[in-house]
Amino acid sequence: MTTDTFIQPFKSVANYFSRIGRDVTSVIERDPAARSKLEVMLVYSGLHAIWIHRITHWLWQRDIRFLARWFSQAARWLTGIEIHPGATIGPGFFIDHGMGVVIGETAEIGADVTLYHGVTLGGTSLNKGKRHPTIGDRVVIGAGAKVLGAIEIGADSRVGANAVVVKSVPENSVVVGVPGQNVRRSQPTPNIDLNHTSLPDILGVTLKELLQRVDELESRVEGHTDEHDHIHAPQDESWVGADFSI
Amino acid sequence: MTTDTFIQPFKSVANYFSRIGRDVTSVIERDPAARSKLEVMLVYSGLHAIWIHRITHWLWQRDIRFLARWFSQAARWLTGIEIHPGATIGPGFFIDHGMGVVIGETAEIGADVTLYHGVTLGGTSLNKGKRHPTIGDRVVIGAGAKVLGAIEIGADSRVGANAVVVKSVPENSVVVGVPGQNVRRSQPTPNIDLNHTSLPDILGVTLKELLQRVDELESRVEGHTDEHDHIHAPQDESWVGADFSI
Amino acid sequence: MTTDTFIQPFKSVANYFSRIGRDVTSVIERDPAARSKLEVMLVYSGLHAIWIHRITHWLWQRDIRFLARWFSQAARWLTGIEIHPGATIGPGFFIDHGMGVVIGETAEIGADVTLYHGVTLGGTSLNKGKRHPTIGDRVVIGAGAKVLGAIEIGADSRVGANAVVVKSVPENSVVVGVPGQNVRRSQPTPNIDLNHTSLPDILGVTLKELLQRVDELESRVEGHTDEHDHIHAPQDESWVGADFSI
Repeated sequence: MTTDTFIQPFKSVANYFSRIGRDVTSVIERDPAARSKLEVMLVYSGLHAIWIHRITHWLWQRDIRFLARWFSQAARWLTGIEIHPGATIGPGFFIDHGMGVVIGETAEIGADVTLYHGVTLGGTSLNKGKRHPTIGDRVVIGAGAKVLGAIEIGADSRVGANAVVVKSVPENSVVVGVPGQNVRRSQPTPNIDLNHTSLPDILGVTLKELLQRVDELESRVEGHTDEHDHIHAPQDESWVGADFSI
Repeated sequence: MTTDTFIQPFKSVANYFSRIGRDVTSVIERDPAARSKLEVMLVYSGLHAIWIHRITHWLWQRDIRFLARWFSQAARWLTGIEIHPGATIGPGFFIDHGMGVVIGETAEIGADVTLYHGVTLGGTSLNKGKRHPTIGDRVVIGAGAKVLGAIEIGADSRVGANAVVVKSVPENSVVVGVPGQNVRRSQPTPNIDLNHTSLPDILGVTLKELLQRVDELESRVEGHTDEHDHIHAPQDESWVGADFSI
Repeated sequence: MTTDTFIQPFKSVANYFSRIGRDVTSVIERDPAARSKLEVMLVYSGLHAIWIHRITHWLWQRDIRFLARWFSQAARWLTGIEIHPGATIGPGFFIDHGMGVVIGETAEIGADVTLYHGVTLGGTSLNKGKRHPTIGDRVVIGAGAKVLGAIEIGADSRVGANAVVVKSVPENSVVVGVPGQNVRRSQPTPNIDLNHTSLPDILGVTLKELLQRVDELESRVEGHTDEHDHIHAPQDESWVGADFSI
């Protein structure tokens, strides 16, 4: 037995605990409700899920797969977060709240990624190969968003709450809607950007502008304006209910 | 020790149990599957979460914050519902099913509000001040909807299932879509309105009408109709699959 | 006591275990991450929920309703899946992942249906009669989708992730969006079709085409093209951020 074989397990354990330190720091940086390191370690289910995942992933890589999956299910029952032992996760990963998160076997997650509760990194192909997404560094994925298939979300992108993403998007994208419309940001953000509420209303804004353009075209072509027959663009951000019979 | 100091704890406890009575009545009024008071008290996770929240909120206000958060996490594990101890909740609050609900620290909820499972009242600012929504009286928020930021949902509004709301809406609004389109109701409803399935299809209906208007404009301007080249408004509520390659 | 009365319970139990066999086969056919029958039986929460539902449904039909609901709540706590004991479920039913699934009292589910996590088959009417959906054979419902009301989803249909369906759709439909837009498939699929990521972007594609048509109409009517003032259809699948102020 070489000294290396002897020392290796201790190194692994030391490494495991050093990453726990980074995890806790990640939470404190990204959640204004976090109050102290001890509290964070005890009450953040997202951390518990990641810590258990590091163990199940270690088992999975050593082909102790049944036990790995069983632990991963135990973690789901404890935390509401289901991470397949095969998933590859980078440093500084933060899952906030976390209930209902599902991360598939061939998902790959870069550094400093943030997921909120209800996020799925899923796959649907019956092929056993790569079938889950690859998430770039510093990506933030809003609550309830579903990212599906062997696609790539470019670094520094932001996925809005409840968006459904089924196509790859480049770096610095903002994806909104069901299915997701992709907007390239006018200027990249320097730091981690948790502002996933600043959602561009792509279809709504475009449709309102089109309504005005068609109104104008009609008045030109027909020589008069037609005020009452059509749905018109909302004046004060509210559409008029009578048009939609509610 | 004055008589008041002596009596106060008993008053608080009596008050606690009187509110439990109102909670149970709220469930029976709003869920047709509810069968008896005893059953409701034993099987409704939403009630258990609210009862534990009343305790954690009491602790939070008295600065026993670590214990408050720890109890709140225990409630999440028991019920699937995560209510921050700091959240302010009015009387007659009803959470149906509840799995995946997240209510943030500075959320404020009025009287007789109904939430379904998967609803988030969340915040994303890194600012520690008010960063979660204020929900007006009698608002109903459908399953999976995300209400994000320090915004206000006016009284008697209805938020559709899976909607994402990031802007304040006035009273009597109906919000639908991702991100949410807001419709002002033509007529307010007198009682609590659980009919969150009656969702106006704002963008779909508007787009169908626009397609017809542009068809007509083109036939006027170009002197002929063009039947085959464009996507046309659906005749029988179904869009034609060939246009979208499925 | 006739022989029949004596034999019946054994038949029921034998039948119960024979259906468990079919359940396990359903999982192996539809989840590429499934590795062995034993593993599937131990780690698939969806199976545990269905097995408990068969028992609670048996109790419910025999009017042992309090116990039925209590067991169903216990199953929710164990699995994150809430199936009302009254719901009627066909053979070959598969719930993948399952956290947050809610199936209502009067829901009816055909043969070989697949649900992902976060799916709701819900009702909102205060009427105690039929108020939840009827799901046809071989339907696949994507993660987070909400199907609401006493509507019918035709056989072989596919509901996209996070879609909200509040109207009946015919056989072979594909439903996408919030609220759901319905597309009739150009050609039915022969086998079970789990490809719920292939989502047609109905409103986005239609809107992009309309933008081009209105651009062209304007240049005809006004005699010149107007390059800078309007939102234009995206060239490379990304909308331009400046138009939406992000």
